[in-house]
Amino acid sequence: MIRVRLDIQYKGTPFGGWQKQKAKGPPTLQGLFEELLSLIFNQPIRVIGSGRTDAGTHARQQVAHCDLPHLPENLRYKLNRLLPKEVAVFRAGPAPENFHALASVVSKTYVYRVWNHSVPHPFLAETSHWVQSPLSLPALNSFAKVFQGTHDFKSFQTRGTPVPDTTRTLFLSEWVERRPHLLEYRVRGNGFLKQMVRNLVGLQLYAQRKGLSPQDLKVILEAKDRREAKDTAPSHGLILWKVHYS
Amino acid sequence: MIRVRLDIQYKGTPFGGWQKQKAKGPPTLQGLFEELLSLIFNQPIRVIGSGRTDAGTHARQQVAHCDLPHLPENLRYKLNRLLPKEVAVFRAGPAPENFHALASVVSKTYVYRVWNHSVPHPFLAETSHWVQSPLSLPALNSFAKVFQGTHDFKSFQTRGTPVPDTTRTLFLSEWVERRPHLLEYRVRGNGFLKQMVRNLVGLQLYAQRKGLSPQDLKVILEAKDRREAKDTAPSHGLILWKVHYS
Repeated sequence: MIRVRLDIQYKGTPFGGWQKQKAKGPPTLQGLFEELLSLIFNQPIRVIGSGRTDAGTHARQQVAHCDLPHLPENLRYKLNRLLPKEVAVFRAGPAPENFHALASVVSKTYVYRVWNHSVPHPFLAETSHWVQSPLSLPALNSFAKVFQGTHDFKSFQTRGTPVPDTTRTLFLSEWVERRPHLLEYRVRGNGFLKQMVRNLVGLQLYAQRKGLSPQDLKVILEAKDRREAKDTAPSHGLILWKVHYS
Repeated sequence: MIRVRLDIQYKGTPFGGWQKQKAKGPPTLQGLFEELLSLIFNQPIRVIGSGRTDAGTHARQQVAHCDLPHLPENLRYKLNRLLPKEVAVFRAGPAPENFHALASVVSKTYVYRVWNHSVPHPFLAETSHWVQSPLSLPALNSFAKVFQGTHDFKSFQTRGTPVPDTTRTLFLSEWVERRPHLLEYRVRGNGFLKQMVRNLVGLQLYAQRKGLSPQDLKVILEAKDRREAKDTAPSHGLILWKVHYS
């Protein structure tokens, strides 16, 4: 068997997230790839991703690995022909035997996009969160700075499978105005808890609306209590931007 | 009655084009606006657009007018609340009595987008035409130049309602590389025949594929015969970019 790395891009709108689900629902990315690869190789193929993305969340770069009996030269082309138009494989090549899409991750970058205008944006409706009331970039950045560094992010973890340790390090946590009215929250960390980015963005937008201070956010972070951190930003504003390996 | 000008943006994907249709099918933009305005004002309101757009074609700026019994201050807000997420009104204000969205048009700009890469682009799949084989920008521009100026564009008119005169003037006809692999054909003219932009783009892409010369395209233009000009580019790459009034 050959270990193969897949670099994948997708618009999450029609999908039920990355992870295969037992319950009926929209197709998942993992399910789709396993189905297509099993079809191509005529045997069951398992696909491991760098991590889950929520239903409706997008990926500029998701990474996965699988073990294949051989590596056809035109695998990328074959997959792109079979995949729906919302998914593309931009790399499908051999990886070192010990490469593991999930275990080898060093850090990940997410981008959360906010369209901040009184008029909605038809072309960004599915890939950004629309906020009508004017946001202040400096205020948002004073919030974002609170999260930078190593902290216990328990306040920002949506309940799910328990994890032994909720401490994570954020190397980058900043807002930029990508172009007029399009704000982007860029965050890079060594790991993220369940819905952590959506919860961080949700609180920062809530804090703007309610006039909270960076000190208020610090208190919420230090409470290590999910009930203290209001609001989860919608999934369709979130993009898994890049998965970093060593 | 007050004459009101509407500036509208839409992603054409879910729509059956601008123009109201008698036959059943997906909703049309004109139909949608007439329905909502008639509902708001509790009387039949007619909406006239600057021209049709095909099913699946988008608009960065479409312009329409209507006559309303009065102009509520929050009309834009009201419309945006009722419209589906693929449509937005960015201006809804009073216009001079003699303003006519169709008759007052001086010129129009269209943009046709081509994603030119071996890998498809999930985020541009609905708003650009995917061409896999590499295109040459200089070659495309040598073709585009042939169409600039005043010509009889009968070779590029899809059959439909007959028009008395098929001569049009193109003030601009050029290809640019908007960003790596994203080519844009920008065309501005005093008027366009039915599917003319899609037919102009279709022939230019065909000419690249077949190795035709600018001289070949000139012969096709001068033939004034639709059968001579091969290929109609798909509607989802086309964007009505701007409607110019004096």
